[in-house]
Amino acid sequence: MRNYMRENGYTAYIVPSSDPHSSEYVADCWKSREWITGFDGSAGTAVITLEDAALWTDSRYWLAADEVLQGTGIELMKDGAENTPTIIAWLTEKLSANQVVGVDGKVCSVAEVEAWQAAFASKGIIINASQDAFDTLWKERPSLPMSMAEQMPIEKAGESASSKIARLRQAIAAAGAEAMAVTMLDEIAWLTNLRGEDVDYNPVLVSYMLVTKDEATLFVDPAKVSTEIIEYLNSEGVRIDCYNSFFAAINGFNGKLLLNPAKCCYAVVESAKCAEIVREASPIASMKAIKNSTEITGFKQAMLAEGKAMVKLLHWLRTAVKGGNLTELAVDSKLTEFRREDADFRGLSFATISAYGDHAAIVHYEPTPATDKQIEERGFLLLDCGGQYNSGTTDITRTIPMGELTQEEKEDYTRVLRGHISLAMARFPKGTCGTQLDVLARQWLWQAGENYLHGTGHGVGHFLNVHEGPHQIRMNHMPAPLLPGVTVTNEPGLYKAGRFGIRIENTMLVVPSLSTEFGEYCAMEPLTICPISKEPIIPELLGAEATAYLNEYHKWVFEQLSGYFSGEELEFLKEACAAL
Amino acid sequence: MRNYMRENGYTAYIVPSSDPHSSEYVADCWKSREWITGFDGSAGTAVITLEDAALWTDSRYWLAADEVLQGTGIELMKDGAENTPTIIAWLTEKLSANQVVGVDGKVCSVAEVEAWQAAFASKGIIINASQDAFDTLWKERPSLPMSMAEQMPIEKAGESASSKIARLRQAIAAAGAEAMAVTMLDEIAWLTNLRGEDVDYNPVLVSYMLVTKDEATLFVDPAKVSTEIIEYLNSEGVRIDCYNSFFAAINGFNGKLLLNPAKCCYAVVESAKCAEIVREASPIASMKAIKNSTEITGFKQAMLAEGKAMVKLLHWLRTAVKGGNLTELAVDSKLTEFRREDADFRGLSFATISAYGDHAAIVHYEPTPATDKQIEERGFLLLDCGGQYNSGTTDITRTIPMGELTQEEKEDYTRVLRGHISLAMARFPKGTCGTQLDVLARQWLWQAGENYLHGTGHGVGHFLNVHEGPHQIRMNHMPAPLLPGVTVTNEPGLYKAGRFGIRIENTMLVVPSLSTEFGEYCAMEPLTICPISKEPIIPELLGAEATAYLNEYHKWVFEQLSGYFSGEELEFLKEACAAL
Repeated sequence: MRNYMRENGYTAYIVPSSDPHSSEYVADCWKSREWITGFDGSAGTAVITLEDAALWTDSRYWLAADEVLQGTGIELMKDGAENTPTIIAWLTEKLSANQVVGVDGKVCSVAEVEAWQAAFASKGIIINASQDAFDTLWKERPSLPMSMAEQMPIEKAGESASSKIARLRQAIAAAGAEAMAVTMLDEIAWLTNLRGEDVDYNPVLVSYMLVTKDEATLFVDPAKVSTEIIEYLNSEGVRIDCYNSFFAAINGFNGKLLLNPAKCCYAVVESAKCAEIVREASPIASMKAIKNSTEITGFKQAMLAEGKAMVKLLHWLRTAVKGGNLTELAVDSKLTEFRREDADFRGLSFATISAYGDHAAIVHYEPTPATDKQIEERGFLLLDCGGQYNSGTTDITRTIPMGELTQEEKEDYTRVLRGHISLAMARFPKGTCGTQLDVLARQWLWQAGENYLHGTGHGVGHFLNVHEGPHQIRMNHMPAPLLPGVTVTNEPGLYKAGRFGIRIENTMLVVPSLSTEFGEYCAMEPLTICPISKEPIIPELLGAEATAYLNEYHKWVFEQLSGYFSGEELEFLKEACAAL
Repeated sequence: MRNYMRENGYTAYIVPSSDPHSSEYVADCWKSREWITGFDGSAGTAVITLEDAALWTDSRYWLAADEVLQGTGIELMKDGAENTPTIIAWLTEKLSANQVVGVDGKVCSVAEVEAWQAAFASKGIIINASQDAFDTLWKERPSLPMSMAEQMPIEKAGESASSKIARLRQAIAAAGAEAMAVTMLDEIAWLTNLRGEDVDYNPVLVSYMLVTKDEATLFVDPAKVSTEIIEYLNSEGVRIDCYNSFFAAINGFNGKLLLNPAKCCYAVVESAKCAEIVREASPIASMKAIKNSTEITGFKQAMLAEGKAMVKLLHWLRTAVKGGNLTELAVDSKLTEFRREDADFRGLSFATISAYGDHAAIVHYEPTPATDKQIEERGFLLLDCGGQYNSGTTDITRTIPMGELTQEEKEDYTRVLRGHISLAMARFPKGTCGTQLDVLARQWLWQAGENYLHGTGHGVGHFLNVHEGPHQIRMNHMPAPLLPGVTVTNEPGLYKAGRFGIRIENTMLVVPSLSTEFGEYCAMEPLTICPISKEPIIPELLGAEATAYLNEYHKWVFEQLSGYFSGEELEFLKEACAAL
């Protein structure tokens, strides 16, 4: 690396962990940071100078990174800890005027690179974002993922690609632009009604798009597109070009180009020499967030499939725990086995979190053979999981009592549940954003001086990414409103390190609710169809209104699912859905 | 006016309704807009061109303005109505390149003038903000208000002016500046521990300040400052200069000058030719918002005085309404009479809103002899009022049932009260802002498809302005946190046009509440000491938790006030404070 840097005139080189598409999951060919440091956590940035090397990563990974970096000469920088310098501060101190910092402009956002440029400008340090060092250095670099494109039929998508592109063109014009560079894979999948299997958990194809007034071009490896798909795309007004031709096409465009600086890779700006850049949030994100009636029907089908699998699992757990050798991973595989029984199941929407006892206090814990833990007849099992179905995507969390519980566990469970229900019961003026409602979910925890540090809710894609925006429900200000038709999770939790973790999550649909002299009001309907454990509830703490809601929810769950069960499982479902 | 404009080369002239201090209430000498249009509403901007003239004002004033403007040749522009052009759009259409728009830079904020400049620049229209046309035109212009400065003793203020100025200097340096132009009158009053009577309801002195590293200068008419006050100020490190010398002093300053562009008048920027301007929110606003323990003790004393007056009034109302000739204005004067019984009472903190029946649905209604209405033995009287006391400022609203109520009135009253209590009961992490809590007050109204369009809460000054920032509780995002020591009102309401209005308001104090492994938590304590009418409450709608809170509140009110009453009034208080 240092030889490469010397040969090419770099004094420092930044290696982020992202891909050119701001993906949540990155394909192997973009894992340059892992290749050069050996550290395989999902988040982290390496910076290499001619003398030093360091890796910034957040508290989830401090222990693991520390171990991996022993003896490598790479210093661990604990991101988020006091006294840890930022990458900018660290580099500014080490470098002097006219020295060059290299980074691959394809794997950083416009906003990131421009922030570095602004910070380094005062010291005369130069950023060169035009080369990917790993093209040269990484001899056995994996090739691009090569799944085949498949078409989502109109009966599932509810709107044709050509209609979506026509709406997008209106939005581009409304933003004062003439074209849009589309780099996010779920946006391309939604816009073209194509799906793929290029990325873990996200049913997308590695590709770019350029949508101008007259043309819409999908830049994708031709080997991934069958003749039928090409014909389909042509009939929707989309032409095909090679994946690698995207930046040349950007280079050839000389009008007003819309892009989202927070998500679009910097290489687009660097290629767009002849274009005038219009920086705006992506209109596709807002269009995609609002589900049409076909998509909503699909979601309901997927939720039914998930509900069936979950009830089977909950019933199975009852006896499985008695055997004495039930583990987190066993629960994980059993659930996937039950999910597979549905013909529409395509895979998980993210890695299942099956976390027992103190493991559940580690947010984002995923069991591995090394950490796998035996589940005993006490405490909570936290199960956060979701599936990709042809008809939709699901995301659910249940906290399941495995036997005896402490008073503290019961109280905390009841507060989390009451928060979940307070948010679920909300009615709110059209235009309200998630930040305005967030306290409804947290208020009972706050009363006890407790809190959770993750968001309360995010959008869920339609047979697409399980995390999507632009709306969110969280403490910090997110202005995108919760409009009718958006999906949003409702997932308050509580984590007590070394002891236990609780989270209760339903995916919800925002619906129009009331129209009065005061305006239009919205509400949320649960999409998730699965009983919520009642054993831990302390009735006085839950309160009458939340109890009534829970009873109604369980009545509905029973109506939806009972037809699919018989015998012992039906008895179990009846009991799980009985009124409190 | 048009002659003046022609002589001075103006094609248009803008006449706002503000003063050089961004005051909520404007002294007569700055009522140029009223003088030239005849329209005396508190909000409105006149724009005069050589051919046309128009007045922009909001919906509260459309009827009144329409009447006043008949036959004047001034067109009414209904601000906030669809199709009403903005001032910028209207002028941009009428004017062409190199034509000059005049405005007095002293009565517009930096942000306003710069927004006009930016909007007009593309068409080459020029803004000249250096002259006040009314200095020439308004022959009998009133002189500046001339109340005498009085010192707030340290026993009331709790911190010396020199200590506050020292803290301000640190904040100025932290903002990267060397001096601050202070133009807001309540900020000057707080900083110097001076009070005056120059402005209605606000106990302030018309003045400016310039605080540099070494000097603090108060620019004020010397006739308003006694020898004792001059000596006092000198001992605190404050020198005196003439009110009119402020802009020359700014002109002579050549360092980094901090100012708040939203509130500081544009004339400061225009005078600061040699200074580098640092644009930041006022550090004084944040310092002033957090009350010290002496101020808090003072608030409690003022609240006690108010509570006594309010209980007397509530008791008096019971029999007064039977006579058949009780009116809104009679209630207003009776309340002021009761307030005057306290030696510390200095005046009202704003014009009392005494609004009966449908009048209460008009937000900001103030009774006048022309609108005064007889109060009958049914429906609600809404009383929103406050006092200035030597020890603090108060703000309270009660909605008082005068006799029979409809089911709708009772339900709406209960929803408003439950919202007030839900917010009052909140516990929240230190750093939470008002927008995050606002829904707690609105949630029960939203459930019924109801809402109120004003904010839920604002800060209250200490023997100062009844409205102060920077924190607020409202639907739109206001990032300033509710820190321990700030006062904040809690005033949800509901207004049904032509029928009735409800608002229930206590002034609250934010206090530290809990410290846990999850951090520091705050809560709100009521400062206002006055029973809340129980007759309209529907117990099932209020719920058990809010009922318990109300009973606790009333128990505390009785403990605070009962010692001051005897006989019939004590009986009344006992009944008013009895548990539900």
